[in-house]
Amino acid sequence: MENRIKKLEEILKNDRFANHIDIRLVSIGEGEAVAEMTVAEKHLNGVNTIQGGALFTLADFAFAAASNSHGRIAVASNASISFFKGISTGKLTARAKEYSSGKTLATYNVEISDDNENKIALFVGTAFMKGEY
Amino acid sequence: MENRIKKLEEILKNDRFANHIDIRLVSIGEGEAVAEMTVAEKHLNGVNTIQGGALFTLADFAFAAASNSHGRIAVASNASISFFKGISTGKLTARAKEYSSGKTLATYNVEISDDNENKIALFVGTAFMKGEY
Amino acid sequence: MENRIKKLEEILKNDRFANHIDIRLVSIGEGEAVAEMTVAEKHLNGVNTIQGGALFTLADFAFAAASNSHGRIAVASNASISFFKGISTGKLTARAKEYSSGKTLATYNVEISDDNENKIALFVGTAFMKGEY
Amino acid sequence: MENRIKKLEEILKNDRFANHIDIRLVSIGEGEAVAEMTVAEKHLNGVNTIQGGALFTLADFAFAAASNSHGRIAVASNASISFFKGISTGKLTARAKEYSSGKTLATYNVEISDDNENKIALFVGTAFMKGEY
Repeated sequence: MENRIKKLEEILKNDRFANHIDIRLVSIGEGEAVAEMTVAEKHLNGVNTIQGGALFTLADFAFAAASNSHGRIAVASNASISFFKGISTGKLTARAKEYSSGKTLATYNVEISDDNENKIALFVGTAFMKGEY
Repeated sequence: MENRIKKLEEILKNDRFANHIDIRLVSIGEGEAVAEMTVAEKHLNGVNTIQGGALFTLADFAFAAASNSHGRIAVASNASISFFKGISTGKLTARAKEYSSGKTLATYNVEISDDNENKIALFVGTAFMKGEY
Repeated sequence: MENRIKKLEEILKNDRFANHIDIRLVSIGEGEAVAEMTVAEKHLNGVNTIQGGALFTLADFAFAAASNSHGRIAVASNASISFFKGISTGKLTARAKEYSSGKTLATYNVEISDDNENKIALFVGTAFMKGEY
Repeated sequence: MENRIKKLEEILKNDRFANHIDIRLVSIGEGEAVAEMTVAEKHLNGVNTIQGGALFTLADFAFAAASNSHGRIAVASNASISFFKGISTGKLTARAKEYSSGKTLATYNVEISDDNENKIALFVGTAFMKGEY
């Protein structure tokens, strides 16, 4: 497993969109992952709260890390996200966990919270499993 | 209405996250909007296709433009997105249209397509209506 | 194609849950279907409007008809539904249309409207394609 | 609180659609509820597994019980559901829990599992809060 996770970490390091918006991978395990982002001005929308797309990307990155952790390429098929609180500063943490996993489809929950454990957003994503990486 | 749309265009110009990832507003009308993005290296994920978060942000930006077009601040409550095709280059267009609008909640569809009218993603978002801007 | 649709109609006639709640198939075409239901007391919830589950089932049945129309067994992987209007009487029509179709996954929209073309609910479902029926 | 829960139980007893398909309320607490259903022939679709609408209704009923538990009428705004396993017999249990609650919107997760704690479906619903009941 160690080699596999290393390979996956290389793939994730190459996620230029995540890099461009300063998302950091914190950890990966079997079917789970944690990522974080410190809210900066570049993440804000026109009314000075974090853009929904920045929150979605943070969740999606954690989802990608978790869903690819089994050694197979996982591609997002669809996702839904609920937004609970508009924030403008602070560090956000996204925790992805596998909820259910089948032969070709797997479902993950990602919870985004702030430094005070306030719930910021909830993401549920379905991944389609392809061949090994 | 013209003044209102101008005010909204100012708000959208101030969306620093959309600016940071090179999303452009094409047009706004009553309950509808179009936005576009030319896929560049900064939008790619670790396997060299556009990151789901970049697609979501493009849709979300068009949704924000359309849902705020009635003169009231609209905040995303939740959204779901389906991804159809992984692409790496080209120009993407997001077309947001109001599907249903009530006193406090309104629902919008956003279709993302590429230059050849291939369907890339479908987004459905619900906005919560606040006071006037 | 005619034989295939006949076979599918037999399968749908055998949908005992749809029968139990009085859903009727109106038509099936390639990638599309229409179903209807006349709201009766048995469809109401505790506050006398149609239960969300009855609306979902109507949409899901039209989705099943449309997604199985290509001669392959299609199984729902996930769906989202937005509710616009609580109603208590009248005939509801669900129109399912294929939005995008890939090798193993396909996405359908289903619009539910009442007799006056009021929008009642919007459903988006993803189907997973299995072998031929 | 006791009186309020009693009042809610009366409302839920009057859910004729839930009664029609043999859904039973097991328990209600603050922001949570449990409901169950024993799969019978009337719940089956044309390929002899439980109809998605029956699963959705079970989840939706638990969601209604949980989201109305605070003494205010809660109406479903939208919901998404993922299906994991097609089953044909046995008892299903839906456990609804409040995930986040604001002034006007609240989000609930509902997990459906079978007698062996297999995950059957995951539902996430958003409720819109109206006046007191």
